Amino acid sequence: MTLLKQNRLQLVENTVKSPNSSATRLLLKGQQTKAAIVDAALSLATQIGLEGLSIGAVAEVMKMSKSGVFAHFGSREELQISVIREYHQRFEKEVFFPVMHLPRGLPRLKALFDSWMKRTTIEIDSGCLYISGAAEFDDRPGPVRDALASSVKTWLQAVHRCVMQAKEEGHLKSDIDVKQTSFEIHGLILALHFEARFLKTDKTSTRAQVGFDHILQRYGQHSFNLEVRKK
Amino acid sequence: MTLLKQNRLQLVENTVKSPNSSATRLLLKGQQTKAAIVDAALSLATQIGLEGLSIGAVAEVMKMSKSGVFAHFGSREELQISVIREYHQRFEKEVFFPVMHLPRGLPRLKALFDSWMKRTTIEIDSGCLYISGAAEFDDRPGPVRDALASSVKTWLQAVHRCVMQAKEEGHLKSDIDVKQTSFEIHGLILALHFEARFLKTDKTSTRAQVGFDHILQRYGQHSFNLEVRKK
Repeated sequence: MTLLKQNRLQLVENTVKSPNSSATRLLLKGQQTKAAIVDAALSLATQIGLEGLSIGAVAEVMKMSKSGVFAHFGSREELQISVIREYHQRFEKEVFFPVMHLPRGLPRLKALFDSWMKRTTIEIDSGCLYISGAAEFDDRPGPVRDALASSVKTWLQAVHRCVMQAKEEGHLKSDIDVKQTSFEIHGLILALHFEARFLKTDKTSTRAQVGFDHILQRYGQHSFNLEVRKK
Repeated sequence: MTLLKQNRLQLVENTVKSPNSSATRLLLKGQQTKAAIVDAALSLATQIGLEGLSIGAVAEVMKMSKSGVFAHFGSREELQISVIREYHQRFEKEVFFPVMHLPRGLPRLKALFDSWMKRTTIEIDSGCLYISGAAEFDDRPGPVRDALASSVKTWLQAVHRCVMQAKEEGHLKSDIDVKQTSFEIHGLILALHFEARFLKTDKTSTRAQVGFDHILQRYGQHSFNLEVRKK
């Protein structure tokens, strides 16, 4: 166990023993500082890339010493992984959670795609960590790549689940290949990001939306699509 | 005009005056060296990224002095742009030219997609300069980004032309939106590259092919599709 982890555990123990002690305040302050560092690091990563992120660069932005930042993460990799976790949480919060209250099936899937597309459109200026990170780390094995790939996979599994539910609910045809449908949906988002951000092509959101409608027309039960459209 | 350009022009003038002179040999040798440097730089760029490419790194691979490499390009940017041009030429040679002899319309479009998909599959190990380069340079304005974007646009216009011809030949429906069709096709290639290279998902080539077949089923003239399938 590293000294850093020992210190943290000691702080947690003290907090449990005496929740209003100075140890609690210290722990809370530490957590706040760490959160502020991760926030600054995430902003920086969307500008210069996850790969360019370093303890030094973040310390400069935070007006902290390098050792001050280092004390919270222990390594550059741990900082990068914390940034990925934070991005993942924000992504879930913005794209996934708002559609979870909707009925399973096509209503939720449609809202999910809409929400994903909106997030991608916002990120046309700042860049999407999942897409740009993939290009940066696709040939660099290690814990950062693993964390990023695991985060992207978790997200794509959520999309996959939504498609599966739409099939189970009878909103999509019973013989569809769920992985194939998810793959085609993912392609639309990637094309939207690539063509809008890199090529500055206009109307890419409309193209992605029309592409999604085509997917629903192909895989959807005719009766349900008509019903949704009437509403 | 730079001294470098003046020297080159002088060489060309001498060559025209006396085609068998030592100036000719010098010019040819210079061109061969330049081509060898670009070749090495392209290999390097697919490994470390276009952005990481530097005169120093290429000089090391070529076992040349930095000034030796510099004399051929004049700047790091010019080296990067030469690499993009070389990649473009190879891409055209491998993906585009082999299908040009095929009849306009669906036969050519199908072969083009097949050829593009094969190239992308080969590049799953080495990385595609158009896709990874886009992620590297999408927020870095300048001549390298411009050269890369222009090269990608030229390629996507070729795809667009193929779709347009298929519409003109009556192989695709007369009311299709050619840009929309091209966008959806591009999405399949991007998803293939992303999921195979970064997530190591299997069967992505099959998914891209099935996705392409779905596009043809949607946009194609029923009679022509049946005819092609019978052959």
